[in-house]
Amino acid sequence: MAQTDNAEARPTPTGRTESFSDGVFAVAVTLLVLDLGVHNVQPGGLATALGREWPHYVTFVVSFLTIGIIWSNHHEMFERIAGVDRPLVLLNLVLLLSVTVIPFTTGLLAAYLRGADEHVAAAVYAASFLLLSVTFTATNTWAARRRLWRAGISPEEMSQQLGRASIGLFVYGAAVGLAFVSAVVSLVLCALAAVYYAFPSRV
Amino acid sequence: MAQTDNAEARPTPTGRTESFSDGVFAVAVTLLVLDLGVHNVQPGGLATALGREWPHYVTFVVSFLTIGIIWSNHHEMFERIAGVDRPLVLLNLVLLLSVTVIPFTTGLLAAYLRGADEHVAAAVYAASFLLLSVTFTATNTWAARRRLWRAGISPEEMSQQLGRASIGLFVYGAAVGLAFVSAVVSLVLCALAAVYYAFPSRV
Amino acid sequence: MAQTDNAEARPTPTGRTESFSDGVFAVAVTLLVLDLGVHNVQPGGLATALGREWPHYVTFVVSFLTIGIIWSNHHEMFERIAGVDRPLVLLNLVLLLSVTVIPFTTGLLAAYLRGADEHVAAAVYAASFLLLSVTFTATNTWAARRRLWRAGISPEEMSQQLGRASIGLFVYGAAVGLAFVSAVVSLVLCALAAVYYAFPSRV
Amino acid sequence: MAQTDNAEARPTPTGRTESFSDGVFAVAVTLLVLDLGVHNVQPGGLATALGREWPHYVTFVVSFLTIGIIWSNHHEMFERIAGVDRPLVLLNLVLLLSVTVIPFTTGLLAAYLRGADEHVAAAVYAASFLLLSVTFTATNTWAARRRLWRAGISPEEMSQQLGRASIGLFVYGAAVGLAFVSAVVSLVLCALAAVYYAFPSRV
Repeated sequence: MAQTDNAEARPTPTGRTESFSDGVFAVAVTLLVLDLGVHNVQPGGLATALGREWPHYVTFVVSFLTIGIIWSNHHEMFERIAGVDRPLVLLNLVLLLSVTVIPFTTGLLAAYLRGADEHVAAAVYAASFLLLSVTFTATNTWAARRRLWRAGISPEEMSQQLGRASIGLFVYGAAVGLAFVSAVVSLVLCALAAVYYAFPSRV
Repeated sequence: MAQTDNAEARPTPTGRTESFSDGVFAVAVTLLVLDLGVHNVQPGGLATALGREWPHYVTFVVSFLTIGIIWSNHHEMFERIAGVDRPLVLLNLVLLLSVTVIPFTTGLLAAYLRGADEHVAAAVYAASFLLLSVTFTATNTWAARRRLWRAGISPEEMSQQLGRASIGLFVYGAAVGLAFVSAVVSLVLCALAAVYYAFPSRV
Repeated sequence: MAQTDNAEARPTPTGRTESFSDGVFAVAVTLLVLDLGVHNVQPGGLATALGREWPHYVTFVVSFLTIGIIWSNHHEMFERIAGVDRPLVLLNLVLLLSVTVIPFTTGLLAAYLRGADEHVAAAVYAASFLLLSVTFTATNTWAARRRLWRAGISPEEMSQQLGRASIGLFVYGAAVGLAFVSAVVSLVLCALAAVYYAFPSRV
Repeated sequence: MAQTDNAEARPTPTGRTESFSDGVFAVAVTLLVLDLGVHNVQPGGLATALGREWPHYVTFVVSFLTIGIIWSNHHEMFERIAGVDRPLVLLNLVLLLSVTVIPFTTGLLAAYLRGADEHVAAAVYAASFLLLSVTFTATNTWAARRRLWRAGISPEEMSQQLGRASIGLFVYGAAVGLAFVSAVVSLVLCALAAVYYAFPSRV
């Protein structure tokens, strides 16, 4: 009886969850390139036409590095996790869904930046990172509550991790609101959040 | 002689089959994003235009989570399988083919939902999940018959697994038929099947 | 000195070559779905329009299963290989290049089948499989010559493998030629070759 | 206290960084096929139309083999690295960003080769390889400085590696400049650099 309970609760190894996640991250980050392109080129005017596409390059670089940095933190999170249960797999799936959406919201912001619709586009862009931040925090919190973390992780490290993850909630939340004031300021805030998460968590 | 027979019948490890499958699942799930987009935007009308695209978001979320949940059950199935033989590799290949088709059928349903062709589109959509369910059941059944499952799996667990897999046959079969009555009801049925499969099998 | 020579010649493990190959196979096979679509749909005419696209479905299925079966034979080949040297990595790279080309040649055949250009399209389609067969044979032969195969593989098994790989050279070569007589016959020949390779090599 | 310092500096295993990198390389190399296509086909004129697309085939092959060879050298570099720290993960991320850009710059060169804009397109193409070369050298140098390399690698081998990586800086730098003289010469120079890197580093 106790054995059955144990079997039910027993988390499975993280290996294949990590390899599937790596795949989704790798494809999502590479699909960003499909948004790069050049339009309405006059003969001899390629350099000018490329120059006009700068919002695509800026948003490409911000999105690429942000997804990459999220991957790297995802990697670090799973190094702390000893095993996964079904709810964690599902939370991770929603996390991956929000990663997958980023090439779409990136293309949207690149297309509408500097135009009449840049506020809406920037809000959608920031909202996709907010969703990511929500699911990242939820995954971390679930793993902490269900004691799926590896043995030997101190309560201090655990609460530091949760605090670090939840900072994104405030920054990306603010970026969604600020998008309606200034699309560029909202984009800069998203880039700053990426810089923050680029630093390792153990200090 | 017995040794040769044994060598012929000896299944190979599941490692690379799992990694190839993970890759296909990861790419298929991420390609769904290519269907997201926005068309016919009037200046200042991006929010309205995005709102008009709701069938794309609904079908994107349903398809993403369904593929993710199938992946998770595929993962669980392969944890029970000790080794693969050639027919299992081929059955798994047809399973992956039906996964790959989903971004196409999803785009179709999103494009035609709420129009004159929604019944046909919903039937094709449900049929792609029915095909998936058929191949999933076939893979499971083959593994059970050829004793490719790991030692220590009870006949009860085995028949429970097969029963669970075959439920999809009925639900998705019904969704194909119901599509001609109501496309939305058919889509809801597909979403409910995903919810069912989201719960772990061991209870 | 002998140690240095040994270090030069020492092949590296096959692990990362296999994982990169799995990735390319998985992406190429999934990209095939991008060719599925439907055009010129009259309101209420989706079923008719889908029916008109049958060459896309036939070529999709043939190409998907062929790439999958090649993957499975590639998998089997690498199970026999103990380690890779640089030329083998490069040969494998050309093999992957020819896999990557298949979504393009598949789209071409699907677009031109049943039209004035079907002979050229079928020849290009068969030629992409011929290229694949050439590189597969070359990779196998190199591994055999440089003794990169695992210990314990008999010369009989080795020559059987090489024979099996080289059958594709003749079949796909014939399919290129026959394309100019009948595109459908050429496609059927390509499908038959896939069926041949679907059977395991050890009999 | 010393233990804490040690924990901070302790690099993590390279496994998941390699698998994420393999994924990006595999997707980027396969996305190159999306640039293959054929336009403005007159009935019966497919062969002519395909022949007109030769710049796409040449740049496809050069880019595919170059990305593949970079992957192979990346693989070799990571075989020398015992563990990764956060800066190395970030440098590797920028390296992957420059790999991801290649399908875009390849498409650009293919589209404008033999036209009025070929100089700009060839310069952008060569610049993407220059960026790759810069990040490759930076990653190598960081690993060497922070002693992340495996034990037993001699200073001679280390400086040979760094020298080999930095040759790309000069060749691709020259290719950027020469693009404004002759696009074809610049492309040939990029192809020659790939041939150089195709040879193994240990001689």
